[in-house]
Amino acid sequence: MVFEIAQIEIVAGKAEEFEAGVSQAIPLFMRARGCNGVKLHRTIEHSGRYLLVVEWTTVEDHMVHFRASSDFQEWRRLVGPFFQTAPVVVHTELAVHSGQFI
Amino acid sequence: MVFEIAQIEIVAGKAEEFEAGVSQAIPLFMRARGCNGVKLHRTIEHSGRYLLVVEWTTVEDHMVHFRASSDFQEWRRLVGPFFQTAPVVVHTELAVHSGQFI
Repeated sequence: MVFEIAQIEIVAGKAEEFEAGVSQAIPLFMRARGCNGVKLHRTIEHSGRYLLVVEWTTVEDHMVHFRASSDFQEWRRLVGPFFQTAPVVVHTELAVHSGQFI
Repeated sequence: MVFEIAQIEIVAGKAEEFEAGVSQAIPLFMRARGCNGVKLHRTIEHSGRYLLVVEWTTVEDHMVHFRASSDFQEWRRLVGPFFQTAPVVVHTELAVHSGQFI
C-alpha cells in the first residue's frame, strides 16, 4: 500500500467548483485498479491550497495504469481548469501509525 | 476534526533512529487532548523526507494545548535531534473523501 500525495494550488475564487469537480471524480478513482480510497484536504492556513491523498496498492497502479486510462483524462477534464500550477506529486509509504483515521 | 500535516526533513543517515523516535512518541500523542491518530509517511521519491499526519479535534488542541505540554517537550527531545530543518506545518480539514484508509 502506498499513498499518492498531490499538492494542488487552485485559481483564486474557484474553490467551490474545484471541490465539486473532485466529488464528481470520486467514482473514477474508486473504480481504478488498485485504488482503495481518496481524500481531498483543504489547507486552513493557505487559501486555495489542497492536498489530494489517494491510497493505491502500488505506485504503478497510479503512475502507469491510472495515468494511461481514459478516466485520468476525465479527471483532468473535471479539475484541470482550476489548477493554478501543475500539481506537485509524491508517493509515500507508512513508516509508523496509530489510531483510527476516517 | 482537523489534520496537522508536518513536512519533516531528516539528517542523512538518521532515518532509522528518527522512525524509532516517532514510534516511541506515539503514546505522547495518543494521550493528548483531542488527538485521534498519528501517521508517519515516508516519502518514496525523496530520501529523508517525511510527512507526519496527526488528527486533532481542533487546531487549538495541537497549537495551544499540545504545544504547551511537557509531552511536546518530550516529543521534541525524542525526534528533534534528527531534524535537518524546522518542520513546515499546516492544518487541513477534509473537503471530500471516499473509501477506507487505515
